[in-house]
Amino acid sequence: MSAKIIIGVMGPGENASPEDNEMAFELGRAIAKEGWAVLTGGRSFGVMDAAMKGARDVNGLTIGVLPDAHDKNASENAQIKIVTGMGSGRNMINVLSSNIIVVLGMAAGTASEVALAIKSNKKVILLHQDEITIRFFKNIGTYRVLIAKDVDETITQIKDYLAVHQLR
Amino acid sequence: MSAKIIIGVMGPGENASPEDNEMAFELGRAIAKEGWAVLTGGRSFGVMDAAMKGARDVNGLTIGVLPDAHDKNASENAQIKIVTGMGSGRNMINVLSSNIIVVLGMAAGTASEVALAIKSNKKVILLHQDEITIRFFKNIGTYRVLIAKDVDETITQIKDYLAVHQLR
Amino acid sequence: MSAKIIIGVMGPGENASPEDNEMAFELGRAIAKEGWAVLTGGRSFGVMDAAMKGARDVNGLTIGVLPDAHDKNASENAQIKIVTGMGSGRNMINVLSSNIIVVLGMAAGTASEVALAIKSNKKVILLHQDEITIRFFKNIGTYRVLIAKDVDETITQIKDYLAVHQLR
Amino acid sequence: MSAKIIIGVMGPGENASPEDNEMAFELGRAIAKEGWAVLTGGRSFGVMDAAMKGARDVNGLTIGVLPDAHDKNASENAQIKIVTGMGSGRNMINVLSSNIIVVLGMAAGTASEVALAIKSNKKVILLHQDEITIRFFKNIGTYRVLIAKDVDETITQIKDYLAVHQLR
Repeated sequence: MSAKIIIGVMGPGENASPEDNEMAFELGRAIAKEGWAVLTGGRSFGVMDAAMKGARDVNGLTIGVLPDAHDKNASENAQIKIVTGMGSGRNMINVLSSNIIVVLGMAAGTASEVALAIKSNKKVILLHQDEITIRFFKNIGTYRVLIAKDVDETITQIKDYLAVHQLR
Repeated sequence: MSAKIIIGVMGPGENASPEDNEMAFELGRAIAKEGWAVLTGGRSFGVMDAAMKGARDVNGLTIGVLPDAHDKNASENAQIKIVTGMGSGRNMINVLSSNIIVVLGMAAGTASEVALAIKSNKKVILLHQDEITIRFFKNIGTYRVLIAKDVDETITQIKDYLAVHQLR
Repeated sequence: MSAKIIIGVMGPGENASPEDNEMAFELGRAIAKEGWAVLTGGRSFGVMDAAMKGARDVNGLTIGVLPDAHDKNASENAQIKIVTGMGSGRNMINVLSSNIIVVLGMAAGTASEVALAIKSNKKVILLHQDEITIRFFKNIGTYRVLIAKDVDETITQIKDYLAVHQLR
Repeated sequence: MSAKIIIGVMGPGENASPEDNEMAFELGRAIAKEGWAVLTGGRSFGVMDAAMKGARDVNGLTIGVLPDAHDKNASENAQIKIVTGMGSGRNMINVLSSNIIVVLGMAAGTASEVALAIKSNKKVILLHQDEITIRFFKNIGTYRVLIAKDVDETITQIKDYLAVHQLR
């Protein structure tokens, strides 16, 4: 069995805060150190770019699932570029291709990924989110929604999830 | 110009409350009376089914955008069945094909449609929603998110929107 | 049962020959006269546009499944505009949403629709096609591929198909 | 620049001939030896499976873009599993994500990939194909369609293509 464990990291692009981006970089690094691949929406901005940059910093594998029908706007930190030509329709593929999803920062595209993940019976870790966001997604996702306050807690939750599902 | 005005009606399937379904029926009826088409996720349950049933009750046009690769699970109230084979990936098409979207009841698939609508710069009317839902989507969608408490208010808001955009 | 019978008409856009367009207009007219809806790729060129124009000429229902994420390039003869934002990825939806498919003229996008139709177990009528095209698709599609030389023969084959499948 | 060169290998699944599968294995091996990734439709049959098996045999990177909404039917030779839930709609993603496409064996799904590749302005190498297939795709694809009779010729054509486009 040579299949890679894939951790989805979802979050805002252009509108990510500096704090989101810093945490995304640390998260990408921490995921890659565990030997897992980082999958994002693949663009050269925000949480997507920072998480893949973090993973590449420690020589991790990065996958970018792109909205455009070409790779001109891809992050240079995306090693495997999946070109969908589906716009935000590709968010469904981000979700389905990830073993588990971590969400950092919030915006409309990100919210659609959390909702599609819940709909698809995927576990989602809400990292460093505000009270309204947590309550909204807990209301619609119950046990599929996990809460983490920092990167360490996130990695622990991913490990627990993978252990229970005998992945790795 | 023969193009139909299309109003998207989004809401839970199996888990819709009786109250959601009743309001969806009235909404579908009211939309059809204006001469607009009703577009839904096309399945034979909940808000989707009820809204199309209401539209058909006054001889309105109904469009169901189906998740499966066949039409076996389609609502019998869907006149035009668009078969996507994309599962919840079809939610993006629901959103893009609607001139404006009304959301009634809440579940994971529905939440993804609100988020994708905001992301795609569509106006969304949150009909009869709770405080947490309204605050969450106002946070990420600002002026794209409208609030209505009943069917009449919804129809008025749709008319205002169509007038401003010179549709019809 | 209020569901519409949908006949897909596929063919080249900008590169359609005048002869293709004339025949597409006649085909669209003939389909609409039977009370069936015409579904095409929805753009304002070639076989798509001509077939919908023919259907509208006799007050038929037309559905355009658009490649863009907006409807700015839609044919004005498309009454129901399904907006996919998937580029040629929408060809799969064209095929799945049609009860049966008629192909007129040939180009790369059209060929993908014939192939996807065969793959999806749909019947395809090759109308007025050359020997190489017929032989190629017969090789991969066997009994799913029907041959017609004119519009009358096409309508007869559609009627036979619908009768066998008890549609209408 | 850390992006991987991705070579799409397309061909029949269950209906691949033993000869197709042997050649696909050799092709996958030869692609991986050049340091390129092999992308396929990801299923555990035919040309897809054999090409990824060949690549893994020399420790190459393999990407499977799956039709299902889960990975239960994936080839065990797919390292990166992209889960689309789009059925044959995922063929468009196979094509767009590949720098260049090699086609070995022929079936309906494969034909749709050749056609979508031509439509998307991608180069396609028809490997070991019959006369009808070559003539059909040359008619619709002209200079985008290359012909190769064996694996060596295919690798040479890929190298030429990558050199002209200054990839790697």
